[in-house]
Amino acid sequence: MNNNAFRNLSYGVYIISTWDNGRATGCTANSAMQITSDPATIAISINHNNYTNKCIEESGNFAISILGENSDPSIIGTFGFQSGKDINKFDSVNYEIKGNMPIVMEGCAYLTCKVINKMETDTHTVFLGKVLDADILSEDSPMTYSYYHKVIKGKSPKNAPTYIAENTPVEKKSEKYVCSVCGYVYEGDNPFEELPDEYTCPICKQPKKAFKKQ
Amino acid sequence: MNNNAFRNLSYGVYIISTWDNGRATGCTANSAMQITSDPATIAISINHNNYTNKCIEESGNFAISILGENSDPSIIGTFGFQSGKDINKFDSVNYEIKGNMPIVMEGCAYLTCKVINKMETDTHTVFLGKVLDADILSEDSPMTYSYYHKVIKGKSPKNAPTYIAENTPVEKKSEKYVCSVCGYVYEGDNPFEELPDEYTCPICKQPKKAFKKQ
Repeated sequence: MNNNAFRNLSYGVYIISTWDNGRATGCTANSAMQITSDPATIAISINHNNYTNKCIEESGNFAISILGENSDPSIIGTFGFQSGKDINKFDSVNYEIKGNMPIVMEGCAYLTCKVINKMETDTHTVFLGKVLDADILSEDSPMTYSYYHKVIKGKSPKNAPTYIAENTPVEKKSEKYVCSVCGYVYEGDNPFEELPDEYTCPICKQPKKAFKKQ
Repeated sequence: MNNNAFRNLSYGVYIISTWDNGRATGCTANSAMQITSDPATIAISINHNNYTNKCIEESGNFAISILGENSDPSIIGTFGFQSGKDINKFDSVNYEIKGNMPIVMEGCAYLTCKVINKMETDTHTVFLGKVLDADILSEDSPMTYSYYHKVIKGKSPKNAPTYIAENTPVEKKSEKYVCSVCGYVYEGDNPFEELPDEYTCPICKQPKKAFKKQ
């Protein structure tokens, strides 16, 4: 099997949000797709180890905030490389309650869903949601997984369905600095060593010392 | 609910293939996503009215041929706007048997899968497939649904999960010629009326007379 073939599947970049006993929480995801058109239903795939999985299970609802190409990439890190069990992820983003669900307002659109079915796998739950509400938030183009990977140089969290596929090396470049937490590869104009000590990873906000030379 | 919000979900364009008692058949789809990474599993959504649904159910296997931006768009029409019950769709494409499954060789990659679970909805079946084999076929970039919609000007078949979303008009243009079968909008340099009688829709191969002025 050639794992690079998986890279040819196309995805968007989403924040899946839900409630944890009245507290907004969620995680980054790229596995979301429409299943039926009438009534509109959507499927998402969430790892059992994601705290969001337990919260969707208990609350019976989830929302999808669709990120745009101009969304701040740190949102992906905030929701993708930390656990909602430990911190209030929504404290660091601009959000509003739409259709009783917490929505990241920096995205280009959102959908709110009620869980109507689910399918278990060894590692992930596929939640099937009936869409209750949906709206556009901006004219920004939707961020694709490919855009995130190629332009923003981001990686997938370990719990993502696409983790293995994305982390299979395709080509080796000499001497690059990689964030050890989220996998972001520094490609700025200035040499990495000359960056100020206050430099932080634009994706997951880890300090400069979290970068390793490869 | 604003149906245009659904357009912000990102997809690829795929040919889902399977066997019908030893005869290769399949359909066009954009709803395919990775569910877990280890073991690699993929979910697809297929309408109950698609002949491919019954054939996947009976054979227990399906394959995903991932189309590229340079794939001939008529493949989408061949597999999307006709029924495999009536014709041998694979007769009009270049295909090979890979991992015991029929694969469209003009795509950029493929995956072969064994059905391990499924979830029924009112109109579609979500098949969960364990990936048995996967490989790259070309260096072509994967065709996204957005590319198909914006660049090739294609539409979704009525059985697609995205059908309503895509066919909600966003803007009206004066006097355009639209294929009444597949929805392709003619936007060539020459006036439509002056095209030769032999002109056929590049998507679904219908004759010139199938086009209606709107």
